[in-house]
This record gives sequence, structure tokens and C-alpha cells, in this order.
Amino acid sequence: MNDHEALMRRAMSMADTARMVARPNPWVGAVIVCLDRSIYEGATQSPGNAHAEVMAIEAARTAGASTIGATLYCTLEPCAHTGRTGPCTQAIIDAGISRVVAGITDPDSRVAGSGFTALRAAGIEVVEGICAEEINAQLAAYLHHRRTGRPFVVLKMATTLDGRTFLPHGPRWLTGESARTQVHHLRAESDAIVVGIGTVLADDPELTVRHVDGPSPQRIVLSRTQQVSPTARVQPCTTWTDDVDDLLDTLGAQGVLQLLVEGGPTIASAFHDRNLINRYVFHIAPIISGDVDALGVFSRTTTDLQHCNIVSVTSYDNDIEIVMEPHKMKVDAL
Amino acid sequence: MNDHEALMRRAMSMADTARMVARPNPWVGAVIVCLDRSIYEGATQSPGNAHAEVMAIEAARTAGASTIGATLYCTLEPCAHTGRTGPCTQAIIDAGISRVVAGITDPDSRVAGSGFTALRAAGIEVVEGICAEEINAQLAAYLHHRRTGRPFVVLKMATTLDGRTFLPHGPRWLTGESARTQVHHLRAESDAIVVGIGTVLADDPELTVRHVDGPSPQRIVLSRTQQVSPTARVQPCTTWTDDVDDLLDTLGAQGVLQLLVEGGPTIASAFHDRNLINRYVFHIAPIISGDVDALGVFSRTTTDLQHCNIVSVTSYDNDIEIVMEPHKMKVDAL
Repeated sequence: MNDHEALMRRAMSMADTARMVARPNPWVGAVIVCLDRSIYEGATQSPGNAHAEVMAIEAARTAGASTIGATLYCTLEPCAHTGRTGPCTQAIIDAGISRVVAGITDPDSRVAGSGFTALRAAGIEVVEGICAEEINAQLAAYLHHRRTGRPFVVLKMATTLDGRTFLPHGPRWLTGESARTQVHHLRAESDAIVVGIGTVLADDPELTVRHVDGPSPQRIVLSRTQQVSPTARVQPCTTWTDDVDDLLDTLGAQGVLQLLVEGGPTIASAFHDRNLINRYVFHIAPIISGDVDALGVFSRTTTDLQHCNIVSVTSYDNDIEIVMEPHKMKVDAL
Repeated sequence: MNDHEALMRRAMSMADTARMVARPNPWVGAVIVCLDRSIYEGATQSPGNAHAEVMAIEAARTAGASTIGATLYCTLEPCAHTGRTGPCTQAIIDAGISRVVAGITDPDSRVAGSGFTALRAAGIEVVEGICAEEINAQLAAYLHHRRTGRPFVVLKMATTLDGRTFLPHGPRWLTGESARTQVHHLRAESDAIVVGIGTVLADDPELTVRHVDGPSPQRIVLSRTQQVSPTARVQPCTTWTDDVDDLLDTLGAQGVLQLLVEGGPTIASAFHDRNLINRYVFHIAPIISGDVDALGVFSRTTTDLQHCNIVSVTSYDNDIEIVMEPHKMKVDAL
């Protein structure tokens, strides 16, 4: 690992701290290395407040360090436009920074390379592509939203080792406390959560974030025919009666970057059938149901196998989390 | 980790090397630490040849080291009876060893504490129970056989993430090369392997050990009605027409320590239904079948959930191996 990578990873750790607050803006981290080798950090603040690059520059100033001739590391291309805040590129130029080392280009149509162009036009050296693969993963939901206009869809299911999800005579929860806490992390990282009316009627779930710090997602109940009771614990919620493609378009337009699908087999099939799931998060409990009639992951059969890449395998006490993502279609196959 | 544990782990590594050759004897490792601090090792040889303790003593002698006053580490209680070889306890006493540090008691009815008794009667200090939990795991198949008279039963299944095992229009193998090689390891560690006649008719499998070094298991085909064709690749094999409980009794009496169940859902159910499976080895492929009608792990429903302990979670390239064992019944609940 060279210096660039080590410092970019430090910027990525800062970006992690911004995940819950920056949305719908990207969660970005920045690190400044001044000529005297002192190092300052920043992360994107809540919408309307400073971006990571400006936070890092401010941190250096507050400490009385000179940013003239410094190198700035940032996970994402700095913005060159005036939104709720001024352009980061101008702040970088004004700070006398001589080199910017960046992770990836921002696909947002208002940026899309113009940030790098502005920096180079001001005589700043720009190094691109450091830790690009990891940053693409860290910002997956944001990048997907900016590229497609739709939220990144995460399906979460809890299953037994033999692939059953609801056991008529089983325990209330298949998984243990730590896996269930992890679900609250997933909720806090998601801007919206959707379940079917069947789950609301059967379990009366709250679907809020409770066991971890973080904002609760917007709650959506899919139901073609039935209203959600005003006293249901999921209230206030949106009842969605149209199809799921329209739901994704609508949520995308509202700035929802990530949608968590937490329902049962029916809703899992509604999204899976149309290839709308970007990430499968399965929590496998150390249980053999032995029940071939118990509900599985899906409620109906789709035509084709979905081949995936394994993103991660993690143990949560007595449960195993497997995260997979569908193989991306090759661009030349589109 | 103290000295005892470090040296016992070294003995356990020796035991690993004996797994394929010692059976139906236990795969045992031994380490001798002489008074001059020189260290010698041994592992159990093939049946009729020297046990680990004698191998370690011989190694010291061959090197010209004195074993008088030495400490012997052995994973399992040394035998005190004359079988195909003389008693290890006598060899230890004759070697002038002054202390034996052992892992666990040998439940074999011909040993069962008499080894430790013989050593203590000769004035040798005996320390028991070092790394006992790990050695119980390492020798699980042997210990189960000696305690119950039956082989330790391992069910191996390959599934998709959504718990499907046979896909009508899927690839020939769900899992990749490295997971399939791991199955050959499982076969080599098993004394017998059983499949159903349906698997023989559908796939004509060989069921031998090919991609790793190790002995091929005895091959058994369960079939109530149909003979296995003399030209089937599984030949020579035993056709078993009685029930699986009788099969386990028969194999146990023949000295089969581990039976690998490698069939489809029907045979998996035959063993699972009667709580005969000691270890579930599932290879999960990074595939979503989306097919609710495809075969799952079992062919019929059993009454009760089986709660398990996770033994290990391992990645083999693009597949995930999950190993679970049923919760042991508490002795006072028997």
C-alpha cells in the first residue's frame, strides 16, 4: 500500500462517518496533507452545510496550518457548481492547494468531470482513480441513484439453513439479537423501507430504527386493495397501490438513494421477478426447518437463474450474513 | 497460550497427518520434550503399525536423545491393552518418561481410563484435559463411533442462496471447482459414502476420491426395489435395501467411523427425519434460483425444527461452505 492508498483509506473512514447525515448528497471524506506534513480531515455535513473538502480545509485553517502547496485527498470528485453550498473546486483553488488526489468521478450530471476540469484549469495537479473499486462499493447506493434515477434496492431475508423463511410453528424470530441489530443498521442506511400489507397485518411491525443510532427510513406499504389501519404501528406510512417500477421512479425522483425491501416472499418476488434487486442480504439462522411446505424466499417462480457475486460473508453471533449482488450486464451486451 | 497448549497443538497437527491412514484407529499425534529440551514427534500409523506415542519415542531414540525424565504430549489417552500392537502405556513406562500431558480420555471400552490408571500406577504424573474441546472436534467421528457403535453421519448438500438443490434448467454443478474439490476431501475422510438409486440413475456418479490424495470410501446405494447396473460407474458398490438405522448399525460394526451422505433430497430426508445426521455441510453457490418449484434440501416434512451450532463458515472461491451440528441433547434430558 503506497502513501496515496493509505491516505485515501483515511478519507474513506471519514466518509463512513458521513453516511447517515449527508444524504441525499454523497457521503464523502477528505484529508489534507500540508507541506509541513500535518494532516487534517473532513467529512460531508448535512444537506446545505459544508462538503468534505471544505471541512478539511477549515480544519487546517482552524489549526493555523497553511494549505498553500498542500495535497488534498478526496473520495469523490469535488463539485464545481453552486448548489446549496458553493463549489468545492473554488474553495480548493482559493486555499492554494497544489495537488488533488481523488477516488472516482462523480456521475451526478452537474459534476461528471467538470470538477476535475476546473481544478486542472487552475493549474492544480489531479490524480484520479485511487482506491476506485472500494469507493465504488462505499458509494454504491449514491452512484446507482445518480446513474439510473432510481434507488439502490436491498432485499433482506432471514432464512433457515434449508432456505425457509416463515415457519408456522417456529420461533417469532429466526435470527438472534445481533443479526436483528444489523437489520437496524441496514434500515438506518436506507432512506425508505417497503413491506407488503400481509406483513403489516401479520406482524404489525414498526419498521423504525431503534437498536442503533441513525434516522428512521420513510415507510412504504405495498397494497393494491387494502388501506393500512390508522392505528398500525407502521404509521405514518405511504400506501403504494401501483407497480414497483413506478415506485422506484417516484422514490428516485424524491432523492431516495437506497430502498430496503423487508417483506415476505410475495414482496421479494415482486422485486426479484423484474430484476430490480441490487443487493441480496440473507441472514441464515443455525436452524434446519425440515419443512418442505414452509414458505421459502420467493412466492412464485421466475424464469432465469440469477448469477451473483459474493460481497461479504459475516458472522453475527449464531447467524451468518451472506451478501450477494447480481452480475452486472456487460455494457456491450446492452 | 501456555506451553502445554502450544505443544498439544503441535501434537494435534501431527494427528491431522494421521487422519487418512489410522482408521479405524483414532488419528492421534504425540510430541516428546526431552530433558535437554529437544522435541520429537509422532503420529499413528496404519492399523497394525505403531501408535503416535511409540512413533514419538522411536523418533527420540533414532536421534540419540534420552527419553528418561521426558514429558510426552498426546492428544488421546494412551492404550493399555494389547491389540494388533502392544500397549502404549508399557512403551511409555519403559522409556522412562516422567510426565504425560494428554488431551482427552479414550472412550473405547478397551481403554476408557485404564491407560491413565496404568501410567499413574507406574509413578508417572498425568495431566489431562489440555485442548480437550479442540481434540473432541478433531476426533469427532472416532469418538461418536466408539460411544454409539455407529458412524458419524455427514450430510453434504449444494444449494443456491434461496435453498434450492436441483434446478431443472440449471448448470450441471451449482458450485465451482474449489468447492467440488472440498467434497473430495470429505469423501477421503469418510470410510463410506451413500447415495440413493435416483442419483445413480440420473448422474451415474463414480463417488471416488479423485482431486485430492486419500482413500476412496466404500460405496453404498440405497434402493428398496432396484439393483444397481453392473456397468454403473459407482460399481463395485453395496446395494442397501433395509432401513437406514440398520445400515448405521451394520456399518458401525464394520468399523466405519464416518459416513458421507451425498444424495439428493430423498436420501437427505431419510437420514434427517430420524435425527441421524451429526453434521450438515452445505455449499451455497452465488446463485438465486428464483424457482419455488425446484427441489429443496429435503423431499418431505419432518415435525420439529432442528437447532444447530455453527461449526465453521468458509469461502471456496465463489461458494460458501456452512457447517452446522445439531444441538446435543443434554444428558439429563435423555
